[in-house]
Amino acid sequence: MYMASFMHSSVALFPHLSPSSSTSSSLPPVSSMAGVRAPTHSFSVAAVGRPASQAVEIDATAPATSTAEAAAEFDFKGYMLGKAAAVNRALDLAVPLAYPERIHEAMRYSLLVGGKRVRPVLCIAACELVGGDEDQAMPSACAVEMIHTMSLIHDDLPCMDNDDFRRGQPACHRAYGEPVAVLAGDALLALAFSHLADPANYPPARPIPPYLLVRAVGELARCIGSEGLVAGQVVDLDSTGVTESIGLDLLEFIHIHKTAILLEASVVIGAIIGGGLDREVERLRQYARCIGLLFQVVDDILDLTKSSSELGKTAGKDLASDKTTYPKLLGLEKSRELAGDLLRDAKLHLQGFDSRKAAPLLHLANYIAYRQK
Amino acid sequence: MYMASFMHSSVALFPHLSPSSSTSSSLPPVSSMAGVRAPTHSFSVAAVGRPASQAVEIDATAPATSTAEAAAEFDFKGYMLGKAAAVNRALDLAVPLAYPERIHEAMRYSLLVGGKRVRPVLCIAACELVGGDEDQAMPSACAVEMIHTMSLIHDDLPCMDNDDFRRGQPACHRAYGEPVAVLAGDALLALAFSHLADPANYPPARPIPPYLLVRAVGELARCIGSEGLVAGQVVDLDSTGVTESIGLDLLEFIHIHKTAILLEASVVIGAIIGGGLDREVERLRQYARCIGLLFQVVDDILDLTKSSSELGKTAGKDLASDKTTYPKLLGLEKSRELAGDLLRDAKLHLQGFDSRKAAPLLHLANYIAYRQK
Repeated sequence: MYMASFMHSSVALFPHLSPSSSTSSSLPPVSSMAGVRAPTHSFSVAAVGRPASQAVEIDATAPATSTAEAAAEFDFKGYMLGKAAAVNRALDLAVPLAYPERIHEAMRYSLLVGGKRVRPVLCIAACELVGGDEDQAMPSACAVEMIHTMSLIHDDLPCMDNDDFRRGQPACHRAYGEPVAVLAGDALLALAFSHLADPANYPPARPIPPYLLVRAVGELARCIGSEGLVAGQVVDLDSTGVTESIGLDLLEFIHIHKTAILLEASVVIGAIIGGGLDREVERLRQYARCIGLLFQVVDDILDLTKSSSELGKTAGKDLASDKTTYPKLLGLEKSRELAGDLLRDAKLHLQGFDSRKAAPLLHLANYIAYRQK
Repeated sequence: MYMASFMHSSVALFPHLSPSSSTSSSLPPVSSMAGVRAPTHSFSVAAVGRPASQAVEIDATAPATSTAEAAAEFDFKGYMLGKAAAVNRALDLAVPLAYPERIHEAMRYSLLVGGKRVRPVLCIAACELVGGDEDQAMPSACAVEMIHTMSLIHDDLPCMDNDDFRRGQPACHRAYGEPVAVLAGDALLALAFSHLADPANYPPARPIPPYLLVRAVGELARCIGSEGLVAGQVVDLDSTGVTESIGLDLLEFIHIHKTAILLEASVVIGAIIGGGLDREVERLRQYARCIGLLFQVVDDILDLTKSSSELGKTAGKDLASDKTTYPKLLGLEKSRELAGDLLRDAKLHLQGFDSRKAAPLLHLANYIAYRQK
């Protein structure tokens, strides 16, 4: 468990969570800009737009100078916009409105509503970092988004979290009925694998060797199943109503499996498909584990510190539902320290890569840490 | 659509469905014999035990003499028992009782309850027919059974068919609750792919080339998704309560996708993994399509002609629920003719293979046609 190492390090407060940083930028949210097919769900890359030197000051000991320089020149907003638009086009093509129309409509309804496309962009960025290109990564990028969408559809079912809304519109089962929602999830799960494994989806001039596709399939499958996403959900279900017994280890298990593992798979599969060396793939896995847990820690902090209008969703839900969170177990300051540790460690795992090529992943880590909702 | 060719051929009545054939054997059901881990669900191979010459007499024009001779010497019952026992052992190992236990218990509960293991045995038999062996086929054999089980778990959910019992015991959601049932299905779906794609599951001395694993993954994924099992279920859902508008084409679409397609995938994946030539794989695909539809036609006939005690489940359910069936659309005699056509065509597609090696698939076709429940 890497929690141990995180907990013993000493890190400064998280500057992005202070009131000043949340108002320090006037950049528009990504979704308001041209080219992104995600009008219903906005996210701010404002904090990410600041110079990287400011981002890394939370830990002055991080040896990130060259990376920081390269990152400072990097147009992260443009990168995110371009990649998200390409992902949306590819997803649109991956699920044509074939017969039987109703199931394909339901799949498209949930898949194409938008969202940040963080997982596909991580996949593409990791692929590009190790020498692959966007076209090679795109089937995997679509596959991880299909899995993410499938998990949301099944999570929202009445027998699960019973959420009527998702990404600002009625949840799949509210729009198409429960049976179709169950089946749409199943179909997206299966489609992820057929899309990933179909040689026709790859650039003919730069096909992916089959042994790498097999590794990618294995990685994706493991991250979903009873030792992946499903494990996190089951333990979360079992923990509901017994919050007093949840310790840090169990909380970490839930979040690593419910959230972090698909971010990890996105990065690792991108690196595999891109032909990364084993040691590169493993370094990127470590990077991804850090940002995966970071994602959840920041979520917990935001729920406690932001208003509903700032978040674009109900704030304080965790407290109201007596859900165990990092701030509840560690306190707010220690949670910020943990987030700082995770961000610093994520960046350390990018050391040794070409700093220019690593800029997208560096900025993605900053984005996950510094997001305001 | 191959329905057209089936409907125009002239075939004698199906002898197995006459009263005499149903009482013509005293062989015990497979499940009562040693080695099979499926005590709760019995099936009779009595009819299959008869000489193949009798089986093929439903169409005297079929050029099946050499195949029939080889088949007559084949111990089908022993074959089924041996393969089913091996499959059960492999499935047991494939889902260890790891943490979190509850999800693994639920997966094992539904997966290991037994059943006929027709799909895994088809997979192994096809693999062996083209030159592969049981160990090479076993990961795929387990994968198709995982998919079959997953589809049953999700089918039984209250929002779907709302069945409280499956294979003689409470359905997964009755035993473990709806949320765990949804997740157990998802986990089995994912596990099918990780199990199939994991090189460690294959005999080290006879590994499967990665490009064949990629083809197998694609085949399995397509058979599940929105143009496979899910398509059949959605069209079936949409047809519920509008029986007057269901014609033969739609009925065939539903059954090909709900039932036949996984039998087809089982055979085709076995043939791919076994290193079958493209033309062998395609012949076996045609064979599998015939037995897949045959499986459903016989199901419909049995529901109409057998008592509940003979079937081991509620008879006449189709009539009571006003469900569209082959006998309802074609009449009983024409349905028997269709079944005869499908059996004959299935056997024709086995011509050209080594008759000794083709014996298991020939007998499996007979078994599907002649089963009494």
